[in-house]
Amino acid sequence: MIEFIGSLAGILTTVSFFPQVLKTIKSKSAGDFSTAWIVMMTTGVFFWMIYGYYISSIPVFLANVVTLGCMSILTWIKFFGSKDDQSVSNQSDGVGNSERSN
Amino acid sequence: MIEFIGSLAGILTTVSFFPQVLKTIKSKSAGDFSTAWIVMMTTGVFFWMIYGYYISSIPVFLANVVTLGCMSILTWIKFFGSKDDQSVSNQSDGVGNSERSN
Repeated sequence: MIEFIGSLAGILTTVSFFPQVLKTIKSKSAGDFSTAWIVMMTTGVFFWMIYGYYISSIPVFLANVVTLGCMSILTWIKFFGSKDDQSVSNQSDGVGNSERSN
Repeated sequence: MIEFIGSLAGILTTVSFFPQVLKTIKSKSAGDFSTAWIVMMTTGVFFWMIYGYYISSIPVFLANVVTLGCMSILTWIKFFGSKDDQSVSNQSDGVGNSERSN
């Protein structure tokens, strides 16, 4: 039962990125994502993948290979591919709150 | 060294949510988050917390208690607290791409 809960947790937190990636690819909008979240999460998932490899845990390794793929897509859209939020997101990351421009 | 990599991964993927929560609280905008991501991620993190408890792993348990707190805030803002994207985000979740209204 306990291993089932762990597997369910791993599957949910990994698969959860699929609809997010689809939505972000479709909307080309990533302004609401914090740059720090994207960078730290992607780096952290990379280290989880390395950790999974060294402890020979296929679930940890595979789950994080998949999540790293998803995070890489979100990272790319955040930095290079978002249509309107690029300038705004930098402002709202740094200074105060800023209205969205169309 | 391997345990260090695992701890680093855990800390990064947990702490990464702090700047995201701060940004979302400040901007009150969660339209770019996929509803499915938020629901599945929050549920998955909840199960990771339960799993950590049952395997008596304090790092797994604590990391996911913290992440669950962060995800709960993002969930609340997505469903109840976001200022302008609520209607738009439902549209872009369901139908095609839609322009943001100011």
